[in-house]
Amino acid sequence: MTTVLPLADDATAPLTAAALSAEEAERLAVLLKAVAEPTRLRLISLVAAHEGQEACVCDLTEPVGLSQPTVSHHLKVLVDAGLLEREKRGVWAYYRLVPGRLEDVARALLLG
Amino acid sequence: MTTVLPLADDATAPLTAAALSAEEAERLAVLLKAVAEPTRLRLISLVAAHEGQEACVCDLTEPVGLSQPTVSHHLKVLVDAGLLEREKRGVWAYYRLVPGRLEDVARALLLG
Repeated sequence: MTTVLPLADDATAPLTAAALSAEEAERLAVLLKAVAEPTRLRLISLVAAHEGQEACVCDLTEPVGLSQPTVSHHLKVLVDAGLLEREKRGVWAYYRLVPGRLEDVARALLLG
Repeated sequence: MTTVLPLADDATAPLTAAALSAEEAERLAVLLKAVAEPTRLRLISLVAAHEGQEACVCDLTEPVGLSQPTVSHHLKVLVDAGLLEREKRGVWAYYRLVPGRLEDVARALLLG
């Protein structure tokens, strides 16, 4: 099941432009927690650096040195956070970055 | 005690420009974990939005609705991650953003 978290406009306003509300802070923290994990950071960068900017689990297990179930778990966290999208084609599921999503998180951290 | 984590140049290279090494991913995840918490996000934004872009604990407890020891704990995590700097003046310690540090974290998440 894929749940794309709603990312309201005000959650992507720069963090330091004005004091964040409790709700904005909760929303941004959920996204940051999804990426604040070394294997997930590596998976994002591997998917983006892969040919055609998409990869299947079969491309990712060897570079990160983890089992397929573990890699699939981390990919699911990133899909649930709306950072990756997943498409089933034949035997494998392919993952690619959701355009602009990582930039939204980065922008929220930038000084206004 | 304040430990500023070394942030090597290669940890601030865009995440998706090339596959991150395990070491780069560990370093970036430590910084992201420090900010991936709603109260700490609010404290960063409150300090930045405060007059003179600095604030003491006494300015911060009421807006976040938490006790001084809890707020001090979160501020210490941000100081230890090198995101805030702390200066003791008289009875109070004052906190301000370390220039450029939050931008380094944001830049590391941006597409190359």
